[in-house]
Amino acid sequence: MARDSVLADLGAKGADGGAAHELTEAVRRYRIDRAPVCLADHDPADTGPFTTRDRGLARALLRAHTAWLTDRQRALAAQGQWAVLVVLQGRDAAGKDSLIRHVMSGLNPQSCDVTSFGVPNEEELRHDFLWRCQRHLPAQGTVGVFNRSHYEEVLVVRVRPDLLRAQRLHPSLVGPGVWDQRLRDIAAFEDYLSRNGTAIVKIFLNVSKEEQKERFLGRLRNPAKHFKFSPSDIRDREHWDAYTEAYEAALGATSTPEAPWYVVPADRKWFARLAVASILVHTIAELDLEHPAPLLADPEELQAARAALEDA
Amino acid sequence: MARDSVLADLGAKGADGGAAHELTEAVRRYRIDRAPVCLADHDPADTGPFTTRDRGLARALLRAHTAWLTDRQRALAAQGQWAVLVVLQGRDAAGKDSLIRHVMSGLNPQSCDVTSFGVPNEEELRHDFLWRCQRHLPAQGTVGVFNRSHYEEVLVVRVRPDLLRAQRLHPSLVGPGVWDQRLRDIAAFEDYLSRNGTAIVKIFLNVSKEEQKERFLGRLRNPAKHFKFSPSDIRDREHWDAYTEAYEAALGATSTPEAPWYVVPADRKWFARLAVASILVHTIAELDLEHPAPLLADPEELQAARAALEDA
Repeated sequence: MARDSVLADLGAKGADGGAAHELTEAVRRYRIDRAPVCLADHDPADTGPFTTRDRGLARALLRAHTAWLTDRQRALAAQGQWAVLVVLQGRDAAGKDSLIRHVMSGLNPQSCDVTSFGVPNEEELRHDFLWRCQRHLPAQGTVGVFNRSHYEEVLVVRVRPDLLRAQRLHPSLVGPGVWDQRLRDIAAFEDYLSRNGTAIVKIFLNVSKEEQKERFLGRLRNPAKHFKFSPSDIRDREHWDAYTEAYEAALGATSTPEAPWYVVPADRKWFARLAVASILVHTIAELDLEHPAPLLADPEELQAARAALEDA
Repeated sequence: MARDSVLADLGAKGADGGAAHELTEAVRRYRIDRAPVCLADHDPADTGPFTTRDRGLARALLRAHTAWLTDRQRALAAQGQWAVLVVLQGRDAAGKDSLIRHVMSGLNPQSCDVTSFGVPNEEELRHDFLWRCQRHLPAQGTVGVFNRSHYEEVLVVRVRPDLLRAQRLHPSLVGPGVWDQRLRDIAAFEDYLSRNGTAIVKIFLNVSKEEQKERFLGRLRNPAKHFKFSPSDIRDREHWDAYTEAYEAALGATSTPEAPWYVVPADRKWFARLAVASILVHTIAELDLEHPAPLLADPEELQAARAALEDA
């Protein structure tokens, strides 16, 4: 679908055409098109073409985008030819859960699955690192959201050697080149998926260290949010720079035209949600949802079915 | 483990040392080390160093091999560092089921899973072709047997275009290069698995067209075996040469030192079983089962545990 017709569609759903266009332009700049990646070049507080005073406009735009997604999800399911995989990564308190709630809530849950990947269980640890994610890949006609993902291997496991030890790999398999190899394996896996009908888009919610601190303090002040705070959050802050390096390596090594990474500024949640909605719209717009799936039955079978019905 | 010590171990389990050595030499020649592969060069009636009169010796050798496997499976499970994946392919009536029964029956089923891959169901069809096999990969410390496998994609699906259509892939994804690409994907997948602790060995049970006919007739004559016969068996015989080409392409493109193919002559079941048992023995003998798995707990935790026990 051409970009102009997407923008026209969004307009029909109540979006300000000019604002939708500016948003699209801003979001395109968040896509990682080359390595090396330097996160210092990405401002977590960026709000694209909008200021805090535009929040009413932003809300209207988000509504138009989610309405568009709801519409096209129906086409995706009816045609049953493509799967969409949304990989969502970010540090603690980057806003992953609330983003899913705000952007995906309009979708039909029958064709949209969200899988959260926490600490691997014993069975998962006893398999290769992609295994637990492969099991939850979206089927054709559906949207799958990975809240954290196979990238945890090259992020938290890379930063914390105790987690690698827990995989009990033979020492010969975990030499110094292991992380570059893992990144190549991930890229190959995603390339394979894309050649088998899965459109992949990957979002890094880029929150600043200061904003993360504010959010942690907010969780500690509000008893209703205590459950979201874990002592390990503080420990991970001590490894902030190591995570930055791991993210930069992962983003640089695995952003491809078929499975691009977007570094989405996440200090302003209202803008992060809008940016992700725009990314999803343009990802799905690129799929050929009009082309009918090949028929399961051969023409003779169809002819026979029609004849049987007419004779009945 | 050095080959000599394997042979000594087999001898201790009642195998004739000279015969075990000759078997090892014969089986090594079944391994595919280079492309292209020409199945006409592989005699399905070969029985290696044995003749039909050696069947008593063959039985004793098989017993010694399965006893060895049972022993080492215990070490594999206790150490919990390696998985073993046995891929078993062959035309109809090549003897896959009975081979599993005869060679694997001594193993502890708690650490040995056999998965048979038949016609994919609707959920499996809606995912990439590796998906259904990935779900059944053996965990560390266990042996997994695939009775048919991910190779079905580049065999039966390659030969029968209706099965490819049933996958409902967008036409842009199934161009003329699709089979070579699939073979590269399989090789990359297996390479990745081997680098993550799974030892892979692949067996093609090579039955002749004449012997297959005899076995089909046997099934049709014996009411207790009628259930094993399907009209599609006859149709697949019409595609014999197309399957031969598909096997040759698959064997040539995916036999690697880490995941080798063996073309095992299968017209004499007693010999095929013995050959496969020998292949499994030498595959598992190459794993370092002595090296202890890295400890989950760090030394301080162990020290604390010991102190706590001593104080109790």
